Amino acid sequence: MTGEQATPRRRGRRAGGEDTKAALLAAAREVFVERGYEGATVRAIAARAGVDAAMVNHWFGGKENLFAKAVLQLPVDPNVLVERLLDGPVEEVGERIVRNFVAVWDATGGGQFTALVRSVTAHDQVAEVLKEFFVKQLLRRVLVELAVDRGELRATLCATQIFGMGIVRYMVRFEPIASADVEVLVKAIAPNLQRYLTGDIG
Amino acid sequence: MTGEQATPRRRGRRAGGEDTKAALLAAAREVFVERGYEGATVRAIAARAGVDAAMVNHWFGGKENLFAKAVLQLPVDPNVLVERLLDGPVEEVGERIVRNFVAVWDATGGGQFTALVRSVTAHDQVAEVLKEFFVKQLLRRVLVELAVDRGELRATLCATQIFGMGIVRYMVRFEPIASADVEVLVKAIAPNLQRYLTGDIG
Repeated sequence: MTGEQATPRRRGRRAGGEDTKAALLAAAREVFVERGYEGATVRAIAARAGVDAAMVNHWFGGKENLFAKAVLQLPVDPNVLVERLLDGPVEEVGERIVRNFVAVWDATGGGQFTALVRSVTAHDQVAEVLKEFFVKQLLRRVLVELAVDRGELRATLCATQIFGMGIVRYMVRFEPIASADVEVLVKAIAPNLQRYLTGDIG
Repeated sequence: MTGEQATPRRRGRRAGGEDTKAALLAAAREVFVERGYEGATVRAIAARAGVDAAMVNHWFGGKENLFAKAVLQLPVDPNVLVERLLDGPVEEVGERIVRNFVAVWDATGGGQFTALVRSVTAHDQVAEVLKEFFVKQLLRRVLVELAVDRGELRATLCATQIFGMGIVRYMVRFEPIASADVEVLVKAIAPNLQRYLTGDIG
């Protein structure tokens, strides 16, 4: 056991599942920021929360999803997201990216996207874990499946477009994008993402 | 814009040009946020700074440039920027956008971009003035010259890509984009901006 007993909330008896969940989310946020995505083990997070490591799988189905919920505040399992992005014709991955990110972020009126950007701008370490996750775990896995060259550059270019879409739609709320139907966004933005994913990028 | 100028700056005798400039910048930031870009008159800003309205033209060449310096923290006159973006073949506007924004933001190591995003996320009114300026004054004027349809949507789409590039290069600093040569960015990103400006967007 390491010195995980810094604050009292980590020791008390858990009344029920919601307590355990909340404790794991709080602990995960701390440990991911301290150690990065790779360095933060399920064991360390569970210890920090004062619960058994099996609770991570029980409540979150694994480290990735806990990360997504705690740090990225995505209301969806990243494994499910990767599967959804890859499920269909290769030339429509760009379209599926737009549809899925808009659906996820629209579901909270942009609140989760805004919270994510706020935590990124406030804490350098959040940017670090975001990079590791968003580029390496999510977009890179999509690009490995697509078997294209320069995967890291392509993934990062996609990140520019996805973040930029989020900023304009949810934070600065420029019209007509702020209230545009998802079909308008798909027609306008998906071909640009598709070029980043599978096109000639120079 | 340091604390010492907080109240006395509006009253005391001006020792020299730098004092006047600093007072105008501080006053402009307040008045633009309070009234928006259109509502903030040169007269009101000068009155708030306790200087003659002619000083705005003298030091900043007009309201647009004062806005760019005070709120957007652009180290370049927006009129000059619009001219630069339009100076050359139409099919290379996307390229000139990448070159000019990267040059402006790289000049401060991304510091000005980061400060801009921080003020946007902290104050809703800054988002409002940013929108009015960035879309209506800057990108829309470029698009009027290009004589394309759906100018507002095109301008806003460009904003997604420009902000997104800034976020990834300067704030979250994802590699390889964070330290990429401008030529890499031009080859990768300019065609996507060009499509937003003059291509088929659905």
